[in-house]
Amino acid sequence: MQDRKFAGIFPYLVSPVDEDGTVREEVLRALVDHLIDFGVHGLVPLGSTGEFFYLDWEQRKRIVEIVLDETAGRVPVIPGVASGSVNDAVHQVEYYNSLHVDGILSVLNVYFPLGQNGIYTYFKAVAEASESPVVLYNNPKFTGFEIENETLLRLSELPMVQYYKDASANTGRLFELSNKLHGRMGIFSASAHVPVFVMMMGGSGWMAGPACVIPKQSVALYELCRDKKWDEAMALQRKLWGINSIFQKYGLAACIKGALTLQGFDVGEPVAPTKRLTPEGWEEIGKVLKEMKEIEESLENGTCKE
Amino acid sequence: MQDRKFAGIFPYLVSPVDEDGTVREEVLRALVDHLIDFGVHGLVPLGSTGEFFYLDWEQRKRIVEIVLDETAGRVPVIPGVASGSVNDAVHQVEYYNSLHVDGILSVLNVYFPLGQNGIYTYFKAVAEASESPVVLYNNPKFTGFEIENETLLRLSELPMVQYYKDASANTGRLFELSNKLHGRMGIFSASAHVPVFVMMMGGSGWMAGPACVIPKQSVALYELCRDKKWDEAMALQRKLWGINSIFQKYGLAACIKGALTLQGFDVGEPVAPTKRLTPEGWEEIGKVLKEMKEIEESLENGTCKE
Amino acid sequence: MQDRKFAGIFPYLVSPVDEDGTVREEVLRALVDHLIDFGVHGLVPLGSTGEFFYLDWEQRKRIVEIVLDETAGRVPVIPGVASGSVNDAVHQVEYYNSLHVDGILSVLNVYFPLGQNGIYTYFKAVAEASESPVVLYNNPKFTGFEIENETLLRLSELPMVQYYKDASANTGRLFELSNKLHGRMGIFSASAHVPVFVMMMGGSGWMAGPACVIPKQSVALYELCRDKKWDEAMALQRKLWGINSIFQKYGLAACIKGALTLQGFDVGEPVAPTKRLTPEGWEEIGKVLKEMKEIEESLENGTCKE
Amino acid sequence: MQDRKFAGIFPYLVSPVDEDGTVREEVLRALVDHLIDFGVHGLVPLGSTGEFFYLDWEQRKRIVEIVLDETAGRVPVIPGVASGSVNDAVHQVEYYNSLHVDGILSVLNVYFPLGQNGIYTYFKAVAEASESPVVLYNNPKFTGFEIENETLLRLSELPMVQYYKDASANTGRLFELSNKLHGRMGIFSASAHVPVFVMMMGGSGWMAGPACVIPKQSVALYELCRDKKWDEAMALQRKLWGINSIFQKYGLAACIKGALTLQGFDVGEPVAPTKRLTPEGWEEIGKVLKEMKEIEESLENGTCKE
Repeated sequence: MQDRKFAGIFPYLVSPVDEDGTVREEVLRALVDHLIDFGVHGLVPLGSTGEFFYLDWEQRKRIVEIVLDETAGRVPVIPGVASGSVNDAVHQVEYYNSLHVDGILSVLNVYFPLGQNGIYTYFKAVAEASESPVVLYNNPKFTGFEIENETLLRLSELPMVQYYKDASANTGRLFELSNKLHGRMGIFSASAHVPVFVMMMGGSGWMAGPACVIPKQSVALYELCRDKKWDEAMALQRKLWGINSIFQKYGLAACIKGALTLQGFDVGEPVAPTKRLTPEGWEEIGKVLKEMKEIEESLENGTCKE
Repeated sequence: MQDRKFAGIFPYLVSPVDEDGTVREEVLRALVDHLIDFGVHGLVPLGSTGEFFYLDWEQRKRIVEIVLDETAGRVPVIPGVASGSVNDAVHQVEYYNSLHVDGILSVLNVYFPLGQNGIYTYFKAVAEASESPVVLYNNPKFTGFEIENETLLRLSELPMVQYYKDASANTGRLFELSNKLHGRMGIFSASAHVPVFVMMMGGSGWMAGPACVIPKQSVALYELCRDKKWDEAMALQRKLWGINSIFQKYGLAACIKGALTLQGFDVGEPVAPTKRLTPEGWEEIGKVLKEMKEIEESLENGTCKE
Repeated sequence: MQDRKFAGIFPYLVSPVDEDGTVREEVLRALVDHLIDFGVHGLVPLGSTGEFFYLDWEQRKRIVEIVLDETAGRVPVIPGVASGSVNDAVHQVEYYNSLHVDGILSVLNVYFPLGQNGIYTYFKAVAEASESPVVLYNNPKFTGFEIENETLLRLSELPMVQYYKDASANTGRLFELSNKLHGRMGIFSASAHVPVFVMMMGGSGWMAGPACVIPKQSVALYELCRDKKWDEAMALQRKLWGINSIFQKYGLAACIKGALTLQGFDVGEPVAPTKRLTPEGWEEIGKVLKEMKEIEESLENGTCKE
Repeated sequence: MQDRKFAGIFPYLVSPVDEDGTVREEVLRALVDHLIDFGVHGLVPLGSTGEFFYLDWEQRKRIVEIVLDETAGRVPVIPGVASGSVNDAVHQVEYYNSLHVDGILSVLNVYFPLGQNGIYTYFKAVAEASESPVVLYNNPKFTGFEIENETLLRLSELPMVQYYKDASANTGRLFELSNKLHGRMGIFSASAHVPVFVMMMGGSGWMAGPACVIPKQSVALYELCRDKKWDEAMALQRKLWGINSIFQKYGLAACIKGALTLQGFDVGEPVAPTKRLTPEGWEEIGKVLKEMKEIEESLENGTCKE
């Protein structure tokens, strides 16, 4: 864990919208407060979990404004900027600069195949436009391309490029990167990953959708890692695995929105055509949430760590 | 060739924009007139060649409005509607309905993996919103997913779903579809394909970027196929292959914008981060254009067909 | 269609083996006679359909010896040579040289990823060892790699490399190759393809498993193409499509072995763990064979072509 | 680390063969002695590193016989059994049973696509034929298919299936498996992986090619993990990363054969058409070996662990 501005648990916020696209302000504010109360170290609206790909610019702006307003500086807010075009990404960044966000999560969407030079060009433009630290985001499963380690190393030379969020599920490749970075970027693990391993490599924390649903457990996991209590961290991570399995099974947004709904946050359905939860999905998530609740209570009683 | 509203050569128009994103109205109007003068059977703004993925809604609307206005009913205009979200796609369709377009080219962009049911849901919503015939578009190379034949067959039951544009390069699969469709959809070939083969299967025509650059040759190819002069069509297709090769080599938008620039249409560069042409690319395109010009002249002299 | 030694219909023979691996000599001889009687232009033991990947060297030798002996020079015999190792492939070729085969079908199996140079090295060694013409075989679906056009063009400079059998299903790529070959290799279509299109490009014929089951219909298709009766050829190809569909559905070897069994050739089951036909599979193949029989009869009556 | 027969460092032995295919007995015996002297816990001839795919049955038998004879029971010997056919695999297993091997590493090679049921059938047949424990081997990068967790769980019910060797590089998936296995199989990490993470999950050890070259360092890494000294293990793993990088760069067999040659073991070249080392490759491996030697010396002096 390096000495950096961002470290710890950064939930990817869901984007609560009505079927007609209206942002549900009240529940979004309630979720922000809830997560901060439970100790998360920052908030990331408009990540994959936040369904950025399915929202237009008006919806995106509205969500970021609400999150910033409700957070009121209690923790850093790092909105996602996603686009296929350099110009459009830069316009988004400039708007978020004007809102004084704490950082930018930078995502590239590709249609025409793009070489590593084109990938570099895009992220460089975002980094140079941003007035706050940039988190590069690599998620080959969803975006269809890989930011190669060489490109990440080149980008890490830019002053504003300070973090990397990896969802490639390739721990070996990440380890190689961490060996070559010499600390130039903080590395965040993704939900598909196993955060303890990323923390062992010197990672900065965990930036992921599930932390919306299990904030307290995620913070406990982070603290065990920070204190290098690896066997305890590993045991806790093992207990939390259930929540990863269901996301893989029912889809990221559907699952986290479903889990939050069951926890009392009326965040609505994923944006169509993303598949909604089936009755079996609802039931299975309910069961997993019960398990997670028990872990949360054991953490409160101190019976988990010891 | 079935008896349908749309048949023949439908160029995918490039989207001429300045670096700051302003649509270049004058050259777009000139290109529309030029292509109609050269005998194309319809125009498709906002296909892949039209860089829809890199343009925002304001730019897209502007381009469609200009093309409709300039065409003034001389040939059908079929704008592309592309989105990842059902709601957004339907909004686009409704706007184009209000402009009285002649048809809709329907494209789906995917971020979260989507099963065939989700794919069906999206295209069904577009088809039900549209007041004019819909062309389904399958381009796995760019979109990262395949609309399976079963899904296409289901969609073909919807009244407005009347055409299918295939860029999958899988002729066998297309042949299988054509065997099962019993004429329910007209099939258009894509640039990556070999249009003569699609026409032999009973295809409706050729919907592609290169037709921007070689409209006369494309129309001649279509007419040979329509008259079942297959050996002559094959010979002409062979001569036209050079233009396909360079598109594959230098990228679709860069290449067609470059070729049009060399032909005197100042359509500008592809939207960043799409790679611009290298000096070698410009040179190679120049050579191919010379070849194409010779073919055009031999067609005018009647020396090609006979 | 070029003036070459090999042209027309070359069935890939199945490899009839008992569960303990013994080659079923009698049925193999009967199949050879049957196919030659029905007019095929050559025979290819040990292609994909011949399950070369699942047979050891003793089985392979036995099969080729039986086929050569039974054919007795009536048509060319072109056995498959498949290996991952240059040495092993060359040993196989040398043995087949000693049997005076008419040609070699050359297949490469890859385990460690191999660049195009390694691919070239392998096929070059086979071509230089062979005393008869070599057919290069590209089947990315099964082998996991693609022989790129550049590599094929380099290989086509070697005197013994005279044919190319393509199962890539990418007609556009094949068309590009045919444009650059200037006739240096004869191109054979594969079953997954649409042979009429390959013939239109000037192809040499059709080398495929289904021709074991529909030899007469395949020969008729070839003759229509040879006589440039493209519309009739296309109509016949359309009628034959059913047999392609079931191969894709139930697996190549299982399906052709099943169809031959239903035709009275007791060729046994595919080698485990390849999946055997399900009851539904048997039934569906039976139905398709009935369709094929009707086509065969209409060809005999002359009612199909006219 | 579970209480199992096999635990620790199991190098995949290279297969030293002359260009004409003769097995180099002397150097193979020398390598076996060297590795046992340096403390490895077992030996695995005919893994991927052992180029099984490129060797015939006579060569494979010879190699296993030499390794068994030279080892003389000092450590377990677990030869690889690889095939595409059930019968052939069972024959190999039966022969190795007769040699009283200590276990079987089971690999499946696929040509026709095979569903999870077919995969299960193959491994079940191997497990039922074997008289010693079986290690399932999953290496999607080379074999082109994935043994899914469900299939692994089904196979783990068979008495002889006691280990799983994973080279999928997907730590998350492996963690999920380990959560569901309830200790029914011991898990070995592969070279492409990060062995410390697998050990943290309760893994049995490291089965990999690089351990041929760095046996002492690998044993030290294993012991740190066994003693749950995770931070020290992580630090050592980081130092050893260089050797993984070059394998990825120059190919597994070429690289390990090259490194052993530089260490004085004249094991020859990889089997053609596998690419040989370039001069740059030799140089880079030389540099990495120097680094590894320094680590080895620091381990001897006790300066590394403390």
